[in-house]
Amino acid sequence: MAEIELSLAEIESLVERVFKSNGCDDSNTEALVRTVVSAERDGCISHGLFRVPGYVASLRSRKVDGKAEPQVSKKTPALIQVDGKSGFAPLAIERGIPELASAAKLLGIGIMTIRNSHHFAALWPEVESLASQQLIGIACLNYMPVVAPFGGKAPLFGTNPIAFAWPRENNTPLVFDMATSAMAQGEVQIADRDGLSVPLGTGLDAHGNMSTNPRDILDGVLLPFGGYKGSAIALMVELLAAGATGDHFSYEAEQADNCDGGPPPGGELIIAISPEVTAGPDWSRHCEDFFTRFEAIDGTRLPGMRRHRLRDGTENRCVNDLLLERIEQLCRPVAQNDRPGLA
Amino acid sequence: MAEIELSLAEIESLVERVFKSNGCDDSNTEALVRTVVSAERDGCISHGLFRVPGYVASLRSRKVDGKAEPQVSKKTPALIQVDGKSGFAPLAIERGIPELASAAKLLGIGIMTIRNSHHFAALWPEVESLASQQLIGIACLNYMPVVAPFGGKAPLFGTNPIAFAWPRENNTPLVFDMATSAMAQGEVQIADRDGLSVPLGTGLDAHGNMSTNPRDILDGVLLPFGGYKGSAIALMVELLAAGATGDHFSYEAEQADNCDGGPPPGGELIIAISPEVTAGPDWSRHCEDFFTRFEAIDGTRLPGMRRHRLRDGTENRCVNDLLLERIEQLCRPVAQNDRPGLA
Repeated sequence: MAEIELSLAEIESLVERVFKSNGCDDSNTEALVRTVVSAERDGCISHGLFRVPGYVASLRSRKVDGKAEPQVSKKTPALIQVDGKSGFAPLAIERGIPELASAAKLLGIGIMTIRNSHHFAALWPEVESLASQQLIGIACLNYMPVVAPFGGKAPLFGTNPIAFAWPRENNTPLVFDMATSAMAQGEVQIADRDGLSVPLGTGLDAHGNMSTNPRDILDGVLLPFGGYKGSAIALMVELLAAGATGDHFSYEAEQADNCDGGPPPGGELIIAISPEVTAGPDWSRHCEDFFTRFEAIDGTRLPGMRRHRLRDGTENRCVNDLLLERIEQLCRPVAQNDRPGLA
Repeated sequence: MAEIELSLAEIESLVERVFKSNGCDDSNTEALVRTVVSAERDGCISHGLFRVPGYVASLRSRKVDGKAEPQVSKKTPALIQVDGKSGFAPLAIERGIPELASAAKLLGIGIMTIRNSHHFAALWPEVESLASQQLIGIACLNYMPVVAPFGGKAPLFGTNPIAFAWPRENNTPLVFDMATSAMAQGEVQIADRDGLSVPLGTGLDAHGNMSTNPRDILDGVLLPFGGYKGSAIALMVELLAAGATGDHFSYEAEQADNCDGGPPPGGELIIAISPEVTAGPDWSRHCEDFFTRFEAIDGTRLPGMRRHRLRDGTENRCVNDLLLERIEQLCRPVAQNDRPGLA
């Protein structure tokens, strides 16, 4: 494997080109560009350009509408519902977040359900967006069934990420965004691509045996992080993302998917809380004292700091050469009979 | 160690006697009886009679007011705030839950902060109470600093439990209530009392080395479950329970405590969500299909089922003989100068 260096501006231009040439309208293209470029900027390569071939496959198979106009409705003063209209999630999220933030600032808490959408990105953009408005953000997503509940050997959960952001007045927010599987599926795929092994406990092979071979695990099943407790968190995420939105559980997403390699249809749940409203005006000082104590402990770091440090780097980003070549190919016209989104 | 068998009625009568003879009024006694007896009923011995000496110590030291009358206010239509008035948490929770449930049923989501209260029990009673009203419940609590953040060797987090309940129309709810430490502190204390060892990974001794000796770990520090991911969940719980309520972080609770062996002052955060409102009228059927798939996987079980099976048992419960003797002693009058709650 070889890597090629690109500036963020070059990455942005490439991503814009690939989505526009595959039938996305301006609004969807811009939301996708923000999503992919911010992942590369922050060093989250498993959610950056790595995902572009999958996005394009879903546009070309017509599973996803690159011109979708998400519909936002306020079902109660605290409940924002977004219908993604079969588009990719980034635009649906961007359209809904301002309403969710308003609700949380007024009531102390708000909840947003996203349905009928295709999520293929990290979750931290949505919770960071809330934190930038001095709100706590919690987001839950489920996905294709690839993780076995604790004690079992058959997949039921998605890798079911949960993201959490805590606002800080004069600092980057505290943010984590983690798969509730022992390892994110994208990371296992990248380990497979790069010929690396993964830690024992990541998953089981097709015969139900522990393995360190990422290929065998991708043919088998991932395990939840943290034993039965992590499995309980994965279950909570599955129920919140699917049960509380009314959208697909992971096994339903698999049934509904066309297996084009892009994201299946599904839902997402986002909760926003205003600490100013729930805890009062002293909340920030109170929490900063806690963060100071946290950071004084040797060997620890607050989640999200590494990503925010990478974000500030002005140097070029390294991109896998084969991936880059593939994306360049995807910018070129395809045969008329599978040309996407021009119907 | 020897055990003595008691019926639930005998346990109830003993618990009522011990709280009344230590200065609790009827309302607080009844709430505490429900809390302790339901723990023994469900086999959660680390939150049942085991806690009674600590409760009594805090009444006798006058840290906790056994006659506290919690004050419930509705700060916004979605935000219920309960001031525990320096009492034990069970009555504060019971007084606030009906308001929280009403808010969630109306708006889809509600949030309750409890402040100025002393929590010494399991968290499942509060989330189960929401689930019995067809609501999703999430509760977060922090405590004394006894858990090191991932990578560190100094305590900062409490054992920081998170509880989650999912309602089921014709079944017991799905419920988990778990410490975000590798093992709950009460369980480590019981292992110490009973001369048992604990699994490697439970905690570090006072020198920062891994240990399986519960006594050494109680003198050292507990570890979060599930490595850095579990540590992130523990951090989220700490921030929600203290930062979002405005009550003590674990290190502040320690500073504010009088070390009488009972619970320090602190807060709790509870979120309630109505799946009927957020997901629509088909939510229950949709989720039951998921549960059916879950239960079909060999080797797994839904969280909370074991506890609900124990609950249904009509047989006597086994109680440690020394503990029982101690509680009987605590029912007797004490010297005038440290008689509790009679000021």
